[in-house]
Amino acid sequence: MELKATRLSIADGIGTVFLHRPERMNAWTGRMHTEYRYCLKLLDDDPEVKAVIVTGSGRGFCVGGDAQALEGHAQRGGYDPGTPDALAEPGYGVAPEFDAAFAYHFGLRKPVIAALNGPAAGVGLALACFADLRFAAPGIKFTTAHGKLNLPAEYGLSWLLPRLIGLGRANDLLLTSRVFTSEEALTLGLVNAIYPADQLLDETRRYVAQLIATVAPNSLRQTRWQIYRDLNRDAAAAVRHSEALIDEMMAEPDYVEGVRAFLEKRPPSWGSET
Amino acid sequence: MELKATRLSIADGIGTVFLHRPERMNAWTGRMHTEYRYCLKLLDDDPEVKAVIVTGSGRGFCVGGDAQALEGHAQRGGYDPGTPDALAEPGYGVAPEFDAAFAYHFGLRKPVIAALNGPAAGVGLALACFADLRFAAPGIKFTTAHGKLNLPAEYGLSWLLPRLIGLGRANDLLLTSRVFTSEEALTLGLVNAIYPADQLLDETRRYVAQLIATVAPNSLRQTRWQIYRDLNRDAAAAVRHSEALIDEMMAEPDYVEGVRAFLEKRPPSWGSET
Amino acid sequence: MELKATRLSIADGIGTVFLHRPERMNAWTGRMHTEYRYCLKLLDDDPEVKAVIVTGSGRGFCVGGDAQALEGHAQRGGYDPGTPDALAEPGYGVAPEFDAAFAYHFGLRKPVIAALNGPAAGVGLALACFADLRFAAPGIKFTTAHGKLNLPAEYGLSWLLPRLIGLGRANDLLLTSRVFTSEEALTLGLVNAIYPADQLLDETRRYVAQLIATVAPNSLRQTRWQIYRDLNRDAAAAVRHSEALIDEMMAEPDYVEGVRAFLEKRPPSWGSET
Repeated sequence: MELKATRLSIADGIGTVFLHRPERMNAWTGRMHTEYRYCLKLLDDDPEVKAVIVTGSGRGFCVGGDAQALEGHAQRGGYDPGTPDALAEPGYGVAPEFDAAFAYHFGLRKPVIAALNGPAAGVGLALACFADLRFAAPGIKFTTAHGKLNLPAEYGLSWLLPRLIGLGRANDLLLTSRVFTSEEALTLGLVNAIYPADQLLDETRRYVAQLIATVAPNSLRQTRWQIYRDLNRDAAAAVRHSEALIDEMMAEPDYVEGVRAFLEKRPPSWGSET
Repeated sequence: MELKATRLSIADGIGTVFLHRPERMNAWTGRMHTEYRYCLKLLDDDPEVKAVIVTGSGRGFCVGGDAQALEGHAQRGGYDPGTPDALAEPGYGVAPEFDAAFAYHFGLRKPVIAALNGPAAGVGLALACFADLRFAAPGIKFTTAHGKLNLPAEYGLSWLLPRLIGLGRANDLLLTSRVFTSEEALTLGLVNAIYPADQLLDETRRYVAQLIATVAPNSLRQTRWQIYRDLNRDAAAAVRHSEALIDEMMAEPDYVEGVRAFLEKRPPSWGSET
Repeated sequence: MELKATRLSIADGIGTVFLHRPERMNAWTGRMHTEYRYCLKLLDDDPEVKAVIVTGSGRGFCVGGDAQALEGHAQRGGYDPGTPDALAEPGYGVAPEFDAAFAYHFGLRKPVIAALNGPAAGVGLALACFADLRFAAPGIKFTTAHGKLNLPAEYGLSWLLPRLIGLGRANDLLLTSRVFTSEEALTLGLVNAIYPADQLLDETRRYVAQLIATVAPNSLRQTRWQIYRDLNRDAAAAVRHSEALIDEMMAEPDYVEGVRAFLEKRPPSWGSET
């Protein structure tokens, strides 16, 4: 697939997806979504890749639906889904509660970390929130934006934000479409850390490199699935699932390696299974 | 309906409900509940009203069930539901999960903002928490209170508080019935902002005026319903609902107006549909 | 039952369970779990006991599964459940969503407060999180730990942490297995207060003594059950349950006593029913 609205790089076990329409601050289009899903699937299927970073090319992360596209929708009276593509299909056979646009993030086998290099608005903010973790440059502007266009909360952001930061503060962001910054987002717990703009991608890679060196690949995978499935089930079901997983995973070679590395006080050397 | 325990004013598209038993710090009675629901329904049905503020007359917001009434309940061995009234029936045909006392707030078509001018305890605190947002004067005292009367958490407060501020901190407030202040509530994310007592109502009105000027009425309505319904469904269902709403709302005149205002960098002029 | 891996004391209506393998920093074993459940059940059934504190003997709280046991699991290729014991059976007939390991905490009739005197890792951190409240000494180290052993999030911790502190911050702790301290835990809302190490147990007892003196026993019991059941149902169901409980509990002698004590401005004297 020829990438027009995204860029992809793979190095040191980390796949990086760049939203890439820098002349439009990476405004979102149907084409970009198709390519983004294609890139995610490619990285998720690649056994050499252990984690994914998503960021923006140029000065923006993603300022939401492209204004020209929005105008087109206004003229047509409907949304343009972009380039339909078999490669773009959501869902990885994991759980029906992840089988929808953006919710497919929760079904991935690898963690996704957003490096917010520039403004994230509307669908751009939703995308950032579907990542497992968010790092940002200082002073970045965020907004849900949808309210100013007579739109609903986009792509499950109304589901996500109260779970990410609590309903008390999420309501303010979701109802007003006001602008807030990296610094407020850090206080809210929406952003996990702030790094200087020129070091953001390097620091994010350092965090991810540490993550994939210390945490076993299957633990990363299962823990993510547990977290997102547990949001939708009761405590006893969650506990019983964790017990079944403990039995399963203790029979894997990486458990033996983890215990040995712990007892020998050395870094672990994880197997390459995916 | 003659209002005895409440007052109502409408100005500039904002309806304000005053809990009004100032000589009793607006202690809650069945009559007050009946009138409160009547006022909410009247404002929700009025196309000129875009948002609702609830506050207290005099020095209190609402100190909970009236102590004299509580004593009466103790003598009778049961709760007095006040003045039954057909107008007071809960639910607006939106969703069964909102069809109960106080949960009817979530089915309203317009945002409700609480201006906490004085103490809120017991059912008064529950009422404040069912509002979408809370502003408070400095140094206001809050307490769940129920524990000191051998009562359960009142009217779903045990459902709300963990979702508003997280279970870690909600447990402390729910189990101890201890007093906490505006300042702690701000830190917890339970209160969205603190304003000087003599400016609280003006500042709340300024916030709401800004909200209804910038956010389209149907966006406010749909976003609220999304938020509260999404608390009780899975991510994929939430996303699919948002996609259906996007299609619907892009066909509305206010979408065209929103995009035009955005491109022309001018304030929008929303239609008056409700 | 002879207690080998725990100690138990009862004084002033407060039961205290000590995890007691001080030479191993109270590392968790199947035997310890059996005894811990036995102690909890004994305290829950004792009408003189109004609340439970759990803490660690010596310098640790609980550093997770015992490393020697972990090695044994690696050799055997499976988990050793310890000493099976009929006394250890979970569940108190309250609700099926609490009928699993550790989730049985939510079905207890009395609050459980963790006094974190030393490191809590892995299953030790999970145990701490199933308590209603957590107090800690300064500088204590915490970690989910499981990722470094190719394990899943243990015993429902992936269910609990996002509800305790929000998904935004829980993801970081669950995915990385990084170490964090009491001070960060306080900021996150995971720990409710920090007390000097040599006063931790006394301060925790003071808090609990205040709790059981001011809050009626049945209110503590019902509020806990409301909180944990409400996490898994909709707002209307939660409100309706609270209304049924209000009717029930207003007919109890402790309601009359609570109202009288309130009106007479004196401390209440709760009945001894459990």
